[in-house]
Amino acid sequence: MAHPIVRFVPNQSTQLNSVFHALADPTRRAVLERLSGGPASTSELAQPFKMALPSFLQHLDVLENCGLVRSRKTGRVRTYQLAPKKLEVAEHWMARQRKMWERRLDQLDSYLEELKEQKR
Amino acid sequence: MAHPIVRFVPNQSTQLNSVFHALADPTRRAVLERLSGGPASTSELAQPFKMALPSFLQHLDVLENCGLVRSRKTGRVRTYQLAPKKLEVAEHWMARQRKMWERRLDQLDSYLEELKEQKR
Repeated sequence: MAHPIVRFVPNQSTQLNSVFHALADPTRRAVLERLSGGPASTSELAQPFKMALPSFLQHLDVLENCGLVRSRKTGRVRTYQLAPKKLEVAEHWMARQRKMWERRLDQLDSYLEELKEQKR
Repeated sequence: MAHPIVRFVPNQSTQLNSVFHALADPTRRAVLERLSGGPASTSELAQPFKMALPSFLQHLDVLENCGLVRSRKTGRVRTYQLAPKKLEVAEHWMARQRKMWERRLDQLDSYLEELKEQKR
C-alpha cells in the first residue's frame, strides 16, 4: 500500500519561531529593508556588507527558509523578493499582545477612577 | 580626574536584535501572553510548563534583560509584569516594513494599469 502524501505544514508557533529568529539579526533586517524597495540580485544585496559571501548566503538562506523572501534563478543570477505574508504572521501576534495589554490598562484606569470616586 | 559616568544606551538595532531573539521562543512568547493578563509570580508563570526551574528562570532572564518584562521581589516572591514599550520598538519596525512594501505594491498596480491603458 502506498503511503499517503504528507505535506509538512508548519504550525503557527513554529512559523513564529523561525520568523522572529530571522528578524533577530541586523544583516537580515537590512536585507529585508532593501527588498522593500523592490527585487534585487544576490550581488546587489551583498554589496553594502563587508562580509564573506558564504556567510552572507547563509543569511539569505535563513530568510528564504522561514518564508520571508523568495528567490528565482535566471541564468547565473539569483533574484530575491519579499514574501510579506510571513511578516504578517509575526505582526499579528504582536498586535494581539498589544490589544490584550491595552485592555489591561483600561481596566486599571477604571479601577483607579472608582477609587477616586470612593474618596470623594 | 574622575571618569564621566557613561550609561550604556543600546541603539535601536541592538534592541531589535534582543527583542526578536526573545520572541523567537515559544515558552517566552507564552510567558508574555500570560503576563498580558496581569502580573504573576515566578511559580505561577512556571506552573504550566513541564520544564526544570533553572531552564525556566533562564527564559525569564532573557525576557527581563531585553526589557520586555520587569520584576520585583517582595519577601521571597518575585513578581513579573509586562514592560510593553520594548514590544512597540519591534512592532514599529515591522509596521514600517509593511508600509514600504504596500507602497511598492501600489506602484506596481499603477504600472499595470498604465500597461492596460496602452493596450486599449
